[in-house]
Amino acid sequence: MGSNLARNLASREGNTVAVYNRSRAKTDELLAAHPEAGFVPSFTYEEFAASLSVPRTAVIMVKAGAGTDAVIDELLTVFEPGDIIVDGGNALFTDTIRREKAVRSTGINFVGMGVSGGEEGALLGPSLMPGGSDEAWVTLGPILTSIAAVAEGEPCVTHVGHDGAGHFVKMVHNGIEYADMQLIAEAYDLIRRGTGKTPAEIADVFAQWNDGELDSYLIEITAEVLRQQDAATGTPLVDVIVDQAGAKGTGGWTVQTAIDLGVPVSGIAEAVFARSLSSHPEQRAVASDLPGPADELQVDGVDAFIEDVRLALFASKIVAYSQGFDEIRAGAAQYGWSIDLGAVAKIWRGGCIIRAQFLNRISDAYAEQPDLQVLLTAPYFVSALERAQDAWRRIVATAAAAGIPSPAFSSSLAYYDGLRADRLPAALIQGQRDFFGAHTYRRIDREGTFHTLWSGDRSEVAAEDTH
Amino acid sequence: MGSNLARNLASREGNTVAVYNRSRAKTDELLAAHPEAGFVPSFTYEEFAASLSVPRTAVIMVKAGAGTDAVIDELLTVFEPGDIIVDGGNALFTDTIRREKAVRSTGINFVGMGVSGGEEGALLGPSLMPGGSDEAWVTLGPILTSIAAVAEGEPCVTHVGHDGAGHFVKMVHNGIEYADMQLIAEAYDLIRRGTGKTPAEIADVFAQWNDGELDSYLIEITAEVLRQQDAATGTPLVDVIVDQAGAKGTGGWTVQTAIDLGVPVSGIAEAVFARSLSSHPEQRAVASDLPGPADELQVDGVDAFIEDVRLALFASKIVAYSQGFDEIRAGAAQYGWSIDLGAVAKIWRGGCIIRAQFLNRISDAYAEQPDLQVLLTAPYFVSALERAQDAWRRIVATAAAAGIPSPAFSSSLAYYDGLRADRLPAALIQGQRDFFGAHTYRRIDREGTFHTLWSGDRSEVAAEDTH
Repeated sequence: MGSNLARNLASREGNTVAVYNRSRAKTDELLAAHPEAGFVPSFTYEEFAASLSVPRTAVIMVKAGAGTDAVIDELLTVFEPGDIIVDGGNALFTDTIRREKAVRSTGINFVGMGVSGGEEGALLGPSLMPGGSDEAWVTLGPILTSIAAVAEGEPCVTHVGHDGAGHFVKMVHNGIEYADMQLIAEAYDLIRRGTGKTPAEIADVFAQWNDGELDSYLIEITAEVLRQQDAATGTPLVDVIVDQAGAKGTGGWTVQTAIDLGVPVSGIAEAVFARSLSSHPEQRAVASDLPGPADELQVDGVDAFIEDVRLALFASKIVAYSQGFDEIRAGAAQYGWSIDLGAVAKIWRGGCIIRAQFLNRISDAYAEQPDLQVLLTAPYFVSALERAQDAWRRIVATAAAAGIPSPAFSSSLAYYDGLRADRLPAALIQGQRDFFGAHTYRRIDREGTFHTLWSGDRSEVAAEDTH
Repeated sequence: MGSNLARNLASREGNTVAVYNRSRAKTDELLAAHPEAGFVPSFTYEEFAASLSVPRTAVIMVKAGAGTDAVIDELLTVFEPGDIIVDGGNALFTDTIRREKAVRSTGINFVGMGVSGGEEGALLGPSLMPGGSDEAWVTLGPILTSIAAVAEGEPCVTHVGHDGAGHFVKMVHNGIEYADMQLIAEAYDLIRRGTGKTPAEIADVFAQWNDGELDSYLIEITAEVLRQQDAATGTPLVDVIVDQAGAKGTGGWTVQTAIDLGVPVSGIAEAVFARSLSSHPEQRAVASDLPGPADELQVDGVDAFIEDVRLALFASKIVAYSQGFDEIRAGAAQYGWSIDLGAVAKIWRGGCIIRAQFLNRISDAYAEQPDLQVLLTAPYFVSALERAQDAWRRIVATAAAAGIPSPAFSSSLAYYDGLRADRLPAALIQGQRDFFGAHTYRRIDREGTFHTLWSGDRSEVAAEDTH
C-alpha cells in the first residue's frame, strides 16, 4: 500500500518522491519495478531529509503500533520545525493524539491520516482523512488533493480536524463498513434460504439493486463475489469459502470508543459480534444440534420477498450510517474537533470501501441542517424509512420465526423503535437501580433527584437526604 | 459501603476491625454511630498498621481510580512482606493486574476483590469475588467466609483466581446484570403495551414469575418497584420516573473487554446501548415523530401472551448468562487464570444483584461438564430453549411488527440462531474482504489460505503468491 501511494504521488505533475525503506533491497526493488516514477532513493534518514524540499513532508506507511513510534523518532532527528510527518497507517486515534502532542512540542507538524481504498485505491485515488494542524494542511492540502479519488468532480480529501480527528473518522468509516457488510450478508442469506435462488441468481439481484438507491461499491462487489464459480469444484465460490469472518480491529475500536462516548452503535456492534461468533468453530460445532423452528422458511411471492429484503437492507443501512455519524459528532464534541459532517460524507463518495450514491443524501442533510441531532431524522431519510418500515418489520419477523440469524437487521429496527418511543422502560431500570443501589432517579414533574426508602417506609426523599 | 462492610466484619466472632478514613471526622462519626462494633480508630497509616495483628489485612473501599493507588502507596510504607492489601472497589481488572504486579515485588500481597450486593449486602452478607495469590487466600479465606452471604448452606465466596481474576469476574457479573435488567424492562414494556395492564397488575405477574424458574432477586424487586405508587401524584411510581437509565461503567467495560477477547456478548451490548439511547433526550425529542407501524399491538389471549413473554425472557436470559460465562472462560484463557466456572455460579446465588435459583443450573452444568464450550448447550438449557423457542420467536416477531423496541430479546435470538447455524453468510464477508483488500480466505475442502485474482483473470492462487 505504501509503494502504491508513493507511485500515485509520483505520477502527479510537479511531484518528486523520495523513498526510504528499512531494507535497502525493498527500495532497490521498487525503483527497478517502477522506473517511470522517478523515485529518489535514500538509504538513511539523513539522506531522506536532505533530498526533500522545505517544508519537508514525509508519509509513514508502516503497520500501526510501535513501528510508527520508531520511525517518528528517527524523523525527528533529521527534520526541522515547520516540516510535516504524516502517519498514513490505521493508528488508534488516541495514539495519534499522543503522538501529535509530543511531536508538536518540537515545532514539527504531525498529521494522522486515514487512508481508505485498499491497494488499488492507494494507487489510483484513495479517500484521504487527514487530521493535524492548519499549518500542515497549507502544505499538505494541494499534495493530497492531487492524489485523492475524485467523486462528482470533487477530490475525496478534506482537513477533517486537529490531531486525531482523521484517524477517528477513518475508524468510524471502518465500523460503518462492518455494519454495511453484515447487512448485505444477512440480505443474501435471507434470499438464499427464503427463495432457494443460487448465488449466481442472487448476484443478479444485487446487480439490479446496484442500479437503484443502494448503488454502492459493496453492493457491486457482492454481485461479483456471488457470481464467481470455483474452478476446482464447479460450485459457487461462496460455498467453498470457510464461513468464519476475520477482523482487523477497527470495527471493534469503533464500538469500544462509542461506549466511552455513550453513543449507541448497536448495528456496528452486532456486525463485530457476528464476525466473532462465526470465528468460533468449536462452539458452533457443539451448538449445531440446538433446536430450531419446526418449519423451514416458506416464501409466498419471491419478488415481493426480495423487495422486502431490499427495503430492510436500505432502512438498516440508514440506521448504521446514522449511528456512525452520531459517533463522529460525539467524538468531535469530546475531543474538541471541528468536523464538518457533510464534508466527511462527501470524501467517502469515492476511493473508499463504503463509497455510495447514498452519501450525497447525507451531505445534503448536513448542508440543510448543520446541527442535525440524528442523521436519520433528516427529511430524505424519514421518507425512506416510512416507505421501508413495513417491509423491514416483516423481514425481522420472518427471520425470527424461521430461525435465520439477522442480528444487524433486528438490532437496527430495535434502535429505530427505541429512538422514536415516547416512553422507554428505562424508567423501570432506574427504579430497580434505586431499589438495590440507592442510585436515585429524576421525576418527570419536578427538578432534583429522588430516592424511595425501599427498606424503610417507602416514602420518597430528596436524594441529598440519602447520604 | 465501606462502613457497612466494616460493621459486617466486626460483628463476626473473633474479628476486631481497625478503621482509618482520610477525614478524622468520618472515623469519629462511625465510632459514635456504632459503638457495638468495637472499632479501633486510627488517624495515621502508622497507627492503622500498628493496630493490626500480623499478617496484616487491610481492605480499601474508595472510589476506583487514582485514589486507590494513593492509598496503596501509603499502606506500602507501613506494611511488611506477607501482609495483605485488599481492594474492594470496582477497579478495572487491568488496573488490578498492574497493581498486583507492583505490590508483589515488595513481598506484600495485593488482592483485587469484587464485592456485590450494594450497601445492604455489604452489611448483611455480600457475594465476594477475591483474586490475588494463594498465600493471601490462606489468611483471607476464613475472614471472607465469615462475612459473605450464605446460599443453600454455602458461603458466597471463592478464590476466583490470581491477580485481576476477581475484578474481572465482578465486571462480567455487572454486565450480566445489565442484560438481565434490560430483558426484564422489555418484558414489562411488552406486557404493558400489549395488554394494557397497569404496573400494579404487572407487579402481580412478576411476583408469580418469581415462584417459578425465573425466581431471582431482580424479578422480585421488579414486582416491588412496579407496585409502588407515587404519593405525590397517586400514579404508579414507574410512570413519574424519567425514562433515562444511568450507568456506572462496568457494563461498558464488559463489552469493551469482550471485543478484545473476541467473545460475542451481544445481549450485554444491547443492554448497554439501550441505556445510552435512553439518555439522549435531545435526540429522542427530534425522533419522536418518526413513522411507526399503522396498527397498535393487538393481543389475542392475554394469558398466552404473558406466558410467551415469560418464555422469551427466560430464553434470552439463558443467552445472556451463556455469553457472560463465555467471556469469563475466554478471559481466564487469555490471562492465565484457573477459574472454576461452576464455583462462580455458586457464589452468585446469594448476596449479589443477579442472585437466582437459575445459578444452580449453571453450576450443575459445569459440574457435569467442566470443559463445556457454550453454557447454553448443557442439557438443562437445551431443553429449556426447546420449550421456549416458539414463544421467543413469536415475541420477537410481534415486537418488530408492533414497533416495540426489544433489542435484547431480538439480539439474543439472533445470537442463538447464529450459533446453531450450519452455515453462516460470513463466507460472503470473507469473499468481499478478499475482493477489496486481498485479505484471503480459507476453503472448506483443503488446507491453506487463498486469494482470487479479482482484478485479473479471476483465477485462484495460494495466498503466499499474492505478496
